[in-house]
Amino acid sequence: MNEQIKEFRDFRSKMNERILSQDNLVIKRLFNLDTNTYKEGALPAKTKEMLGLVASMVLRCDDCIKYHLEKCYEEKVSTKEMMEVFSVANIVGGTIVIPHTRRAMEYWDMLCGETSAEE
Amino acid sequence: MNEQIKEFRDFRSKMNERILSQDNLVIKRLFNLDTNTYKEGALPAKTKEMLGLVASMVLRCDDCIKYHLEKCYEEKVSTKEMMEVFSVANIVGGTIVIPHTRRAMEYWDMLCGETSAEE
Amino acid sequence: MNEQIKEFRDFRSKMNERILSQDNLVIKRLFNLDTNTYKEGALPAKTKEMLGLVASMVLRCDDCIKYHLEKCYEEKVSTKEMMEVFSVANIVGGTIVIPHTRRAMEYWDMLCGETSAEE
Amino acid sequence: MNEQIKEFRDFRSKMNERILSQDNLVIKRLFNLDTNTYKEGALPAKTKEMLGLVASMVLRCDDCIKYHLEKCYEEKVSTKEMMEVFSVANIVGGTIVIPHTRRAMEYWDMLCGETSAEE
Amino acid sequence: MNEQIKEFRDFRSKMNERILSQDNLVIKRLFNLDTNTYKEGALPAKTKEMLGLVASMVLRCDDCIKYHLEKCYEEKVSTKEMMEVFSVANIVGGTIVIPHTRRAMEYWDMLCGETSAEE
Amino acid sequence: MNEQIKEFRDFRSKMNERILSQDNLVIKRLFNLDTNTYKEGALPAKTKEMLGLVASMVLRCDDCIKYHLEKCYEEKVSTKEMMEVFSVANIVGGTIVIPHTRRAMEYWDMLCGETSAEE
Repeated sequence: MNEQIKEFRDFRSKMNERILSQDNLVIKRLFNLDTNTYKEGALPAKTKEMLGLVASMVLRCDDCIKYHLEKCYEEKVSTKEMMEVFSVANIVGGTIVIPHTRRAMEYWDMLCGETSAEE
Repeated sequence: MNEQIKEFRDFRSKMNERILSQDNLVIKRLFNLDTNTYKEGALPAKTKEMLGLVASMVLRCDDCIKYHLEKCYEEKVSTKEMMEVFSVANIVGGTIVIPHTRRAMEYWDMLCGETSAEE
Repeated sequence: MNEQIKEFRDFRSKMNERILSQDNLVIKRLFNLDTNTYKEGALPAKTKEMLGLVASMVLRCDDCIKYHLEKCYEEKVSTKEMMEVFSVANIVGGTIVIPHTRRAMEYWDMLCGETSAEE
Repeated sequence: MNEQIKEFRDFRSKMNERILSQDNLVIKRLFNLDTNTYKEGALPAKTKEMLGLVASMVLRCDDCIKYHLEKCYEEKVSTKEMMEVFSVANIVGGTIVIPHTRRAMEYWDMLCGETSAEE
Repeated sequence: MNEQIKEFRDFRSKMNERILSQDNLVIKRLFNLDTNTYKEGALPAKTKEMLGLVASMVLRCDDCIKYHLEKCYEEKVSTKEMMEVFSVANIVGGTIVIPHTRRAMEYWDMLCGETSAEE
Repeated sequence: MNEQIKEFRDFRSKMNERILSQDNLVIKRLFNLDTNTYKEGALPAKTKEMLGLVASMVLRCDDCIKYHLEKCYEEKVSTKEMMEVFSVANIVGGTIVIPHTRRAMEYWDMLCGETSAEE
């Protein structure tokens, strides 16, 4: 697996586990709720993940962006669709979103390359 | 028409016209680009309007929220779907988004009531 | 009761009820969690409400500020302590927080006056 | 004087006085520092006020915007220059800044009209 | 000393010194004021540091978070209390705060481990 | 050339090219508009770059800050003037801007050192 992807996932898992081990009820429930939010409902999971992504982009959180990029990839968002999510984020959030878009594009390319490489 | 909706639209039109009359090229092009962003492409216009809405909610801009609520209404987003957009915005953006969700719910109800009233 | 306080509370209750009536599980649970967050735990409720207030101030949400001002008032935060919460918010968040501090001061004075008036 | 301008200034003065009367040293010094920041130095006061305005616009604080619009007006910023400050704010901050630009344009027009009316 | 803690402190000291050497009066006074803000007053220093931390978390500034974590540690905030500060930050600020919470948890563990190691 | 400056520029160019190769019309036009925004107009390019910098600082985007620092350097902003831009950003945006100011100062020093070194 691509090193940057692996590192991101490993740190994420390790620290989530560490945080949850503290038994703070509010945090545990929020983490739980977070997972439920993106489950298929009136809207398909794919749409919800794109909503999560665009929200993460305008709030400019690189780790949240990576997470939703992974989920969007699993939900079979195409690169053309992804560019349109990027365009909404950049228009609403302004050019301040561009550096995050650069890193998002790079990570998206890694995710896509990942599959080709694995096949 | 509902008074609050009318007021919002009138001020919006009046000031857009005033701003554009100043002939600042960058602003004129940005306004133009804004309209293009939400046109049907790889993603349907309905999805793009929901993306615009969730972005406006986490950035907490009531006027932008109203604008995208109107567009979502035109694109036939159902109230159940709307609640899921609200849920993503509130989970990603936190409880700081709740007061904006209250005003969004109220405006959405006005938009829905609007049609019933007009029929 | 002071008119501005009453209006704030009434709109808040009415719209919370309306939102919760939609039966969106994620939103219902988040609202629930919100209440639990400020309950006495390792930290006293008073401290937690001040934490909620300072967070609302630097994120600049007037309605959230009002809500936590009410709770701080119930938890017997003194005006001197309140000014120190304001000072942290203004130093961390910058002068952009000043207009919100003006409205917070006004609302705090109303809450304090409220009691005198009721007595 | 225009009613909206008067109201803004009156509330501002009244609450500043109220806040400063609390004798919180940090807040008093920050208010003081705020005034010093925009004084002529290596950069002219006019440039500094435009810097303060663009910062207020991308952080989307209407009251801060109004304050710096007044100062820019005093410093003889022309409407053409003002539109370029608006354009930077809208490009960097995105379309989320547009509603604030509408209100800024309206207030700027009031300030300009103010003078004509007074003459 | 832990390498990450040392690096953070060294860069912080070096650049503060460099910035202050420029003799910009506003910046010097703001730095000064910053220190005064967290001194014991009507509220204990411990409470003020937690206020500074929660504000830094919802504004999502990792370096500010680290700084206040260090101060909270000095003020003897317990890990249970710390988790409650984290919970307020995550509820108010939303899941966008989670990645910063992961890094905060890691740094907190380092600070706690630091002492054990030194003993 | 300084390694950190080179790395920043290389990644920026590479990813801009990659993003633009996707032929998303909205993004292409926004990138274009971005360049036009800072061209000499009613305001000199130097002033506009300082406006872009202060906006990037209060929105706390390190890459945007670096970009505008480079442009300011090209436009012959002096270090004394730069410190005043920093002071406005820190006063308006608060101490949360300090860590970004540290990195900005470091990058500015590199840019200035760059020239001496090249001569």
